[in-house]
Amino acid sequence: MECQTFYRSHTCGELRMAQAGQSVTLAGFLDNFREVGAGLGFAVLRDFYGTTQVVCESEEMVKTFKGLNKESTVQVTGVVRERDSKNPKLPTGDIEVVPQAVTVLGRCRHNELPFQVNRSREADEAARLKYRYLDLRNPEVKKNIVLRSQVVAALRSAMIDHGFMEITTPILTASSPEGARDYLVPSRKHPGKFYALPQAPQQFKQLLMASGFDKYFQIAPCFRDEDARGDRSPGEFYQLDMEMAFAGQEDVFAVLEDVLPPVFAKYGAYDTASSAPFLRIPYAEAMEKYGTDKPDLRIDLTVTDATGLLADCGFEPFAGNTVKAVVVSGFEGTRKQIDKLCADVEVQAGNKAYWFRLDENGELVGGIAKFVQERKAAVIAALGLEPGCFVGLSAGKKGAAQKTAGVLVKALGAFCPNHFKKEQYAFCWIVDFPMYEIGEESGELEFCHNPFSMPSGGLEVLRKAAAGAVDPLAITADQYDLVCNGVELSSGAVRNHDPEIMVEAFQLVGLGEEDVKAKFPAMYNAFTYGAPPHAGIAPGVDRMVMLLAGEESIREIIPFPMNKNAQDLMMDAPGFVTEAQLEELHIKVTEVAE
Amino acid sequence: MECQTFYRSHTCGELRMAQAGQSVTLAGFLDNFREVGAGLGFAVLRDFYGTTQVVCESEEMVKTFKGLNKESTVQVTGVVRERDSKNPKLPTGDIEVVPQAVTVLGRCRHNELPFQVNRSREADEAARLKYRYLDLRNPEVKKNIVLRSQVVAALRSAMIDHGFMEITTPILTASSPEGARDYLVPSRKHPGKFYALPQAPQQFKQLLMASGFDKYFQIAPCFRDEDARGDRSPGEFYQLDMEMAFAGQEDVFAVLEDVLPPVFAKYGAYDTASSAPFLRIPYAEAMEKYGTDKPDLRIDLTVTDATGLLADCGFEPFAGNTVKAVVVSGFEGTRKQIDKLCADVEVQAGNKAYWFRLDENGELVGGIAKFVQERKAAVIAALGLEPGCFVGLSAGKKGAAQKTAGVLVKALGAFCPNHFKKEQYAFCWIVDFPMYEIGEESGELEFCHNPFSMPSGGLEVLRKAAAGAVDPLAITADQYDLVCNGVELSSGAVRNHDPEIMVEAFQLVGLGEEDVKAKFPAMYNAFTYGAPPHAGIAPGVDRMVMLLAGEESIREIIPFPMNKNAQDLMMDAPGFVTEAQLEELHIKVTEVAE
Repeated sequence: MECQTFYRSHTCGELRMAQAGQSVTLAGFLDNFREVGAGLGFAVLRDFYGTTQVVCESEEMVKTFKGLNKESTVQVTGVVRERDSKNPKLPTGDIEVVPQAVTVLGRCRHNELPFQVNRSREADEAARLKYRYLDLRNPEVKKNIVLRSQVVAALRSAMIDHGFMEITTPILTASSPEGARDYLVPSRKHPGKFYALPQAPQQFKQLLMASGFDKYFQIAPCFRDEDARGDRSPGEFYQLDMEMAFAGQEDVFAVLEDVLPPVFAKYGAYDTASSAPFLRIPYAEAMEKYGTDKPDLRIDLTVTDATGLLADCGFEPFAGNTVKAVVVSGFEGTRKQIDKLCADVEVQAGNKAYWFRLDENGELVGGIAKFVQERKAAVIAALGLEPGCFVGLSAGKKGAAQKTAGVLVKALGAFCPNHFKKEQYAFCWIVDFPMYEIGEESGELEFCHNPFSMPSGGLEVLRKAAAGAVDPLAITADQYDLVCNGVELSSGAVRNHDPEIMVEAFQLVGLGEEDVKAKFPAMYNAFTYGAPPHAGIAPGVDRMVMLLAGEESIREIIPFPMNKNAQDLMMDAPGFVTEAQLEELHIKVTEVAE
Repeated sequence: MECQTFYRSHTCGELRMAQAGQSVTLAGFLDNFREVGAGLGFAVLRDFYGTTQVVCESEEMVKTFKGLNKESTVQVTGVVRERDSKNPKLPTGDIEVVPQAVTVLGRCRHNELPFQVNRSREADEAARLKYRYLDLRNPEVKKNIVLRSQVVAALRSAMIDHGFMEITTPILTASSPEGARDYLVPSRKHPGKFYALPQAPQQFKQLLMASGFDKYFQIAPCFRDEDARGDRSPGEFYQLDMEMAFAGQEDVFAVLEDVLPPVFAKYGAYDTASSAPFLRIPYAEAMEKYGTDKPDLRIDLTVTDATGLLADCGFEPFAGNTVKAVVVSGFEGTRKQIDKLCADVEVQAGNKAYWFRLDENGELVGGIAKFVQERKAAVIAALGLEPGCFVGLSAGKKGAAQKTAGVLVKALGAFCPNHFKKEQYAFCWIVDFPMYEIGEESGELEFCHNPFSMPSGGLEVLRKAAAGAVDPLAITADQYDLVCNGVELSSGAVRNHDPEIMVEAFQLVGLGEEDVKAKFPAMYNAFTYGAPPHAGIAPGVDRMVMLLAGEESIREIIPFPMNKNAQDLMMDAPGFVTEAQLEELHIKVTEVAE
């Protein structure tokens, strides 16, 4: 890789002892200048690759640097010299450059910056976003963007190595009746009509399968006009979208089990990742055992059903309810810590958590111990308790008890280092999602997730259900979630590629062919011309990079993010446009912001 | 690469003699079935990778295939057998599969298709676009999409090898006052305000340079709401966008001279491409020598000024005009062909072309020969004519004479195989574009191309021009075009990164700092905080792929193209949306299409 350019012989991260004595030319931002005396000063030059110390040993040179605002760009020609006091923390710390000539390339006109570049992460977010070009000069901020670029390049390269072809699908397309809110784009040539930005390339990738493509992927921009969340930026986000023809669930699993772990282990904060095959956990089992369909397998705690054991123990909240227990061996926590933990769980789950302990002496103590006392032996046997065990408990209707237990698992895991092997990426697949559910509002049979996933068992099971021979609620879909460290990276599915099965699946919920067609006409039409069975998934790039970077805010891993209010403060977007522009688009504004 | 999936043991392009005797499972589209007798028939199975012959030798098997519409997807399990009569044209032509079991995977419900898949290129374009999923099943159509994907992957990989980082820039951004028409996106959260889709990531890439990034690239989606042209799709298109910090023109040249030729030679219709360095041709020289700033260097013909030689020869159209000559040695064309060629040139150039020849006997003949006769010796000497030479001529004001001569060069090149080495990719750079021109309408000094390019000579030359010591029309910009085979792939420039030089450049045309700021406020602000000198370019991906595929229509190299009327006929975009959607966006439609 050639780093020499018109303005430099070396980068600011390149010089070592090997270059001592050489005449070099560097170019970079003036990171800092420290005047030690009238004839001595130390400047630090920074570019993308690193920093280099420039030592000024003449009054004139000191004056030159003193006259420059920090962040100006300069070109320095000088001789490389071994440093008297080396800095082992700095790759270029063995040397310094003694300048002979300094040229100002881009003067920073401001004596004061909105924030100090190398402490920009402490600045107000609005200032950071408005002056993002200064924020990004901070190596700590830049490194996440570099990481993102490397991760995306590595994912691409791995997908291509696995025989996948990247195909870009249209960004100006049709509004879709499903899913989230669309961004609309008024058409100039077709008055009153609108394009929509794709919420995902779902239809296009399925159309590619119907077009005879075999292994498709795309680092795909997706657009949803939804309010911001911690892990979702308003506006646009990216998916590693993929789809395979003549393929089933295991084919998709095999690809991602091969592609993701090396990328996670290489670029992530932790250097260990699950190897293939990832644990497959049926949805019902996940809810029962982990209290969630997004288990964090780095935590070795699981949920035990304690309904038979404790529902009738006399503790009022348990009566007539499902009771779940989370047993933590070797627990060390104060009463105060336990109270806080239970309070946190209640806030998060919206349902109380309870507890007791088997202390070092084998006594049941704390929390609701007195209600359990009577059946101590049975409890110890059923839950496998040993002295030092903590038992967290939840109660309620089955779903609430499960969910609360799931929150307990995560809280207890975070609290107990001996039950939480944090430094790894632990993947699993959640499989066998139910195809149908009874709608909470309607009380009728409804699709549970995606009506376009293939029901496990295909046409046959649907016909049996229609004939009353199979409970529709027992039908599962060939749908799966990819979960890593308790974060859902994506849902995927074997798609329903057969119009006959689609219609049958819709008929079970009282809909028909016209409803299928109305949802996605192009896809339905395409499938009537013969389509291969196909399956895919689309892990979120932003979420993966957040996991790898260890960042909590999605704005830390996007080069030019919008704020939570869907504004780009640097570019001043969205903004007002001219009447002439609106006229050409055949629209009028009905309300104007202050 | 693993090709085995849940539905197949091998692909339809994979089987060879080595697998003879093996039991295999294939899955694919039923490309064709030919019944030879009640107990004999030949089916062809097609997937992404190729086709395989399936021979049916039982009445039952023949019946199974006869009952299927073409384009249905099927799974065939059977035994591989050496063919009696091999087909050397087919990679799988040595073998056939004798089926034991056939499963229909996706039934094609239509007895008749809108067009025959393998002849889809002959179908009506509207039908092709509406049934794009059938059109793409045609291997001839598919191969361009595969090529596009491979070319993009190769470009990415080469850029990364050259130390460039791919960074994706926002798609929802601010409307820009410059350039073409923006696509607008109404904001839900900010009534009356709009996002715009980027016409190019120009501002973002320059902001990345100001942010301390060093070598940026992006396969960047760009959006311009312009009417369709042969080489431009309405809506979206892609650029290989790149920019380098602390770099000049030669740095950009060196990268593309290294990146493009291997990709062109490997993936293009021709396997030869210019090697570095590409010819650099100053704009003025290009106009003088090739009559165009997009010369096709595969043609060895050039333009000679013949004004002094012929303007006063008595031929009325030459009088008082600039006269240009294109000399073609070894010319062989009939009078009729010459007339057609001149007529074609006139249509294209909007200006007449003239000619004469020096025949095999050394006589001036044809066209305007009689006007030249008198000065035969001088003409032969000045133009270096030999017997058999054809001389094409143009006349008019300098610009018109040049342009017409340029059209003549291309027409004569296309006509004369001995002057046109067609089978190669011939690159050149056009450099030293003028910075200013006298506006045709205003009669005042105006920017010639991009006001944000760096004037060669920087602040000094601008100040001299302001002081009257330099003619502003003589100032060139560090701006360049990349041309291949007569097609402009891109304009690029060393950017003006210095607010002081920007203001000076604007002052020459009577504008000031406020005008600079008004154009690109974020970029101008960023530059006041110290920016590195930077330069870049953005070759059009679609144009490059067209050149490589040898396709004339841009729709042949886009997976799901819009038609010329900016409609996606398959997805039915743009389309009507609901009143509720518009209300949420605070807009009203003022006119509705029929």
